[in-house]
Amino acid sequence: MLSQPIADPAARARLLDAIRFDARGLVPAIAQQHDTGEVLMLAWMNREAVEETLSTGRVCYFSRSRGGLWRKGETSGQVQGLVELRVDCDGDTLLALVDQTGVACHTGRRSCFFSALRDGEVVPITAPEVDPAALYGG
Amino acid sequence: MLSQPIADPAARARLLDAIRFDARGLVPAIAQQHDTGEVLMLAWMNREAVEETLSTGRVCYFSRSRGGLWRKGETSGQVQGLVELRVDCDGDTLLALVDQTGVACHTGRRSCFFSALRDGEVVPITAPEVDPAALYGG
Repeated sequence: MLSQPIADPAARARLLDAIRFDARGLVPAIAQQHDTGEVLMLAWMNREAVEETLSTGRVCYFSRSRGGLWRKGETSGQVQGLVELRVDCDGDTLLALVDQTGVACHTGRRSCFFSALRDGEVVPITAPEVDPAALYGG
Repeated sequence: MLSQPIADPAARARLLDAIRFDARGLVPAIAQQHDTGEVLMLAWMNREAVEETLSTGRVCYFSRSRGGLWRKGETSGQVQGLVELRVDCDGDTLLALVDQTGVACHTGRRSCFFSALRDGEVVPITAPEVDPAALYGG
């Protein structure tokens, strides 16, 4: 897994300074596979999650439902190596170029964005690559 | 510009039903160029913006700062044709595959995600392709 941590604390602080966290202290982060361009998922980060992502080179989000850090792949093994973290023009969204091990979605699909209209119905347009039970236990 | 509106109101309603809008009635929407895979921007949609996007085939967001519909490119001419609108696994994020005319970013860059670390500093990693003054008036 490709992973490019930022070793210099001053550099990490400069990137953190460029981010405008919302009133909850969160910023949305898009994960894109660095080489294929697939958009894998969107999740949220707080300051601590950004700092951990940059320092370790492994993507860490903030789980709004659990109210704590969410080290992607900690349970499933489907980790994301950080290739580059980019900030948008007004600082309120992040684009994480990642190297995804296995699948990003808890349904066993590569990408979370698999629902779309076909013949007027909302259907899954991709099939799971992995059985979720194999990722999370039966 | 490629544009694939959804003519059937019942189909549009089914896609709308798959979306979980937040407490403000909004959902984040990622715009990705359909053929190159470039992630162009992230903005927000309300129910009305999704409905207009699907029915017209031209992407319409909700501007949180102005508190109203934001027909992308209305002022600048840099419109986005809708190729497909996908919903993620828990219904709370959209991925719009678009055909971007010109540039997505108000700075004249193709993508809004142009700030990243180089040699420990946050710098623009792409140059503007268009003078913003030409897009919005001098």
